[in-house]
Amino acid sequence: MEESSGNSRRIEVVFSPAMFPVYFDNKDVAVVVIDVLRATSAICAAFDAGVQEVIPVATVEEAQAYKDMGYLVGAERKAEIVPGFDFGNSPLTFKDTDKFKDKSIVLTTTNGTRAIEAAQDATHLLIGAFTNLDAVCKKLEELDKDVLLFCAGWKDRFNLEDTLLAGAITKKLSSENLRFSNLSDSALASISLYNEAEGNLYQYLGNSSHRRRLSSLNLEEDIIYCLTPNQTEVVPVLHENKLVTKIPELTYS
Amino acid sequence: MEESSGNSRRIEVVFSPAMFPVYFDNKDVAVVVIDVLRATSAICAAFDAGVQEVIPVATVEEAQAYKDMGYLVGAERKAEIVPGFDFGNSPLTFKDTDKFKDKSIVLTTTNGTRAIEAAQDATHLLIGAFTNLDAVCKKLEELDKDVLLFCAGWKDRFNLEDTLLAGAITKKLSSENLRFSNLSDSALASISLYNEAEGNLYQYLGNSSHRRRLSSLNLEEDIIYCLTPNQTEVVPVLHENKLVTKIPELTYS
Repeated sequence: MEESSGNSRRIEVVFSPAMFPVYFDNKDVAVVVIDVLRATSAICAAFDAGVQEVIPVATVEEAQAYKDMGYLVGAERKAEIVPGFDFGNSPLTFKDTDKFKDKSIVLTTTNGTRAIEAAQDATHLLIGAFTNLDAVCKKLEELDKDVLLFCAGWKDRFNLEDTLLAGAITKKLSSENLRFSNLSDSALASISLYNEAEGNLYQYLGNSSHRRRLSSLNLEEDIIYCLTPNQTEVVPVLHENKLVTKIPELTYS
Repeated sequence: MEESSGNSRRIEVVFSPAMFPVYFDNKDVAVVVIDVLRATSAICAAFDAGVQEVIPVATVEEAQAYKDMGYLVGAERKAEIVPGFDFGNSPLTFKDTDKFKDKSIVLTTTNGTRAIEAAQDATHLLIGAFTNLDAVCKKLEELDKDVLLFCAGWKDRFNLEDTLLAGAITKKLSSENLRFSNLSDSALASISLYNEAEGNLYQYLGNSSHRRRLSSLNLEEDIIYCLTPNQTEVVPVLHENKLVTKIPELTYS
């Protein structure tokens, strides 16, 4: 009883960067940035491959400046690698672990890195993907703050795949931990959608705009990877404008 | 086949006034403003009671100016009547048809009238509620434009009841008319949610933030009224900054 009353943690889902300022009225929250296809899935894959840090930048110009300094730099626009850069936002890039182990890399993407920038002042900023679903939930339980699940969307529009992950996180937190019982309408809607899609995310997303966009570019292998839960334990967090998995004060597994 | 290809009409659902500018990139569309609890339900009820026109205004100050001129003026903030005004946004106000027949009335509400103002430059702006669901769908078929279903939300946040009506409209249009086959992710999500809630909207909304807010003010009768489909054939439309059901060029039933 006590857990579900005055001390309950609020979960809200933000469906678009255009709505983020409305929900971000208190900075002392844990924000999870979600860009399932494909930025946040790629960031988790990068750390799984041994990358030391990921420097997210919002513009191609900033990315180019790092490239000129000799960094390994990823840049994606319109779902494709920007010409002249080392990689885009495909998580499968990071299968080549020798290339990335212990490196600092830089990344700019259409939606994901913009969302990271928008939320950079939050007390905690975590990177969420289906691939690290359980690990993110565990971290949110430890942090014990109100939670904003921030869907990067597609050019400020709502998208389904990010919403489904928000639903999966909300469902897990609210069913397993009584402290997370204060659900906004957006959280309730996300759970409803996830309940319908659970078990066959790929099929459920068959008509979604983004899956159609990627399928037309022959990225089915990427999509399947990004929709497969719990492939890694890493939970990247933002610290001094860089994504890391270990920070001095706190240790993230 | 032909109907579902090049000539198909796009349906997008906008979950919040904060997202409206993102979706409103072409003004030659039919926008349906939706504020189920309770502004758009009340506006439909007003016309059903014989009101001649509803002048929507965004601020209490504008509403006061009309009141000073002798108009009947409704003003709602925080779900209650603003002191000094004639009514708020309860549709049951309009049971008293003698008071309202043939009158021009003025209305300002927390969310609904702000949404009307945001969308006022659309080629067609219609008022949607569960109470006029079938009539709105019929009108959208006649207009044959791309459709934006614009949920007024709650203070720029997503809300469930407006989304369910958007889902009901999308489902009806896309299942009965092949021309409306181009569904955005937000439209697909709205249909999914409506499918789950259909048949017992009241129960489904039991945990929603807005229903809880109204229930605590003893407004159950309002809620039941607002969730009961097809009580009227009126479809209010915006014409020269006023809502009417008949305009010179076109006749709305």
